[in-house]
Amino acid sequence: MPGYSGTKEDYARRLRRIEGQVRGIARMVDEDTYCIDVLTQISAVTKALQAVGIGLVEDHLGHCVVEAARSSEQEGQEKVTEATDAIARLVRS
Amino acid sequence: MPGYSGTKEDYARRLRRIEGQVRGIARMVDEDTYCIDVLTQISAVTKALQAVGIGLVEDHLGHCVVEAARSSEQEGQEKVTEATDAIARLVRS
Amino acid sequence: MPGYSGTKEDYARRLRRIEGQVRGIARMVDEDTYCIDVLTQISAVTKALQAVGIGLVEDHLGHCVVEAARSSEQEGQEKVTEATDAIARLVRS
Amino acid sequence: MPGYSGTKEDYARRLRRIEGQVRGIARMVDEDTYCIDVLTQISAVTKALQAVGIGLVEDHLGHCVVEAARSSEQEGQEKVTEATDAIARLVRS
Repeated sequence: MPGYSGTKEDYARRLRRIEGQVRGIARMVDEDTYCIDVLTQISAVTKALQAVGIGLVEDHLGHCVVEAARSSEQEGQEKVTEATDAIARLVRS
Repeated sequence: MPGYSGTKEDYARRLRRIEGQVRGIARMVDEDTYCIDVLTQISAVTKALQAVGIGLVEDHLGHCVVEAARSSEQEGQEKVTEATDAIARLVRS
Repeated sequence: MPGYSGTKEDYARRLRRIEGQVRGIARMVDEDTYCIDVLTQISAVTKALQAVGIGLVEDHLGHCVVEAARSSEQEGQEKVTEATDAIARLVRS
Repeated sequence: MPGYSGTKEDYARRLRRIEGQVRGIARMVDEDTYCIDVLTQISAVTKALQAVGIGLVEDHLGHCVVEAARSSEQEGQEKVTEATDAIARLVRS
């Protein structure tokens, strides 16, 4: 069971909001809104998405990684390597 | 008229795709998909959104900023200051 | 002549400060400073470097791009394409 | 003892290189190098600094966090909260 099940409703709500914001950006482009205003909205949605990502990182570390470390040092290390790769992709995106 | 009207269809198509990807992430969370896979998808969508933002920056510079500069040095400078603020928000997001 | 000559002293001062901060991070690692504190410092230096980059973008748009646009539409477009590639690298870094 | 002592030499070497690159950027500005080339170098140094940051995150998770988790569930959670804050700063920088 993944680590975020405790706050699934919260993630669902935030992602629905982000989905609506992306639809709003598409509407802005369709209605020839001034580019700068569209860009401001794109930055806001990017930040919201990254915040969801950081929340998932925290849940993953706090559940899967801690649990694996408590099971064995070796399992902990494997989960850390995997989590770091995902964090690196988030930092670079 | 904003600078991106030439490729409006293209932006519409890309934003619809991003909207679908965000909906896909919500579904992944709902179905208890492994956190790392959700994170990979969040990084991909963030990159896609930023690519749309960079496209809009190029269109804005190539249309509004160049046009303002051709009208007067002063107008060009004003548009540059405004564009730089938007670019700074994109870099920081 | 590149666009940033008006504030060369300012960039020199900021880059000297960043250089000192990087040396400080090396010292923190050498002295076994707690990782989290080193990470905080790395984030601060990254932000300072990006701020220098955004300043250079503004100077470049306000000098080279505006000047090229005032010379001809075609030259303006070429500078915009080149500047957008540099901005894209900054957003992705 | 912080988590990165195994590769301290490696971090020292990479940070010395980054320090030299920052000094090189200052020299480029001093010698009126074309802005776009300075920007390319700033993006490269930013990426190098973030790569050091990601390495420190991996070391920290693999040492401090795993160790804390193996000591007690509670200690593991505390280290995870602290590490996530540092990761969030890195993602936002």
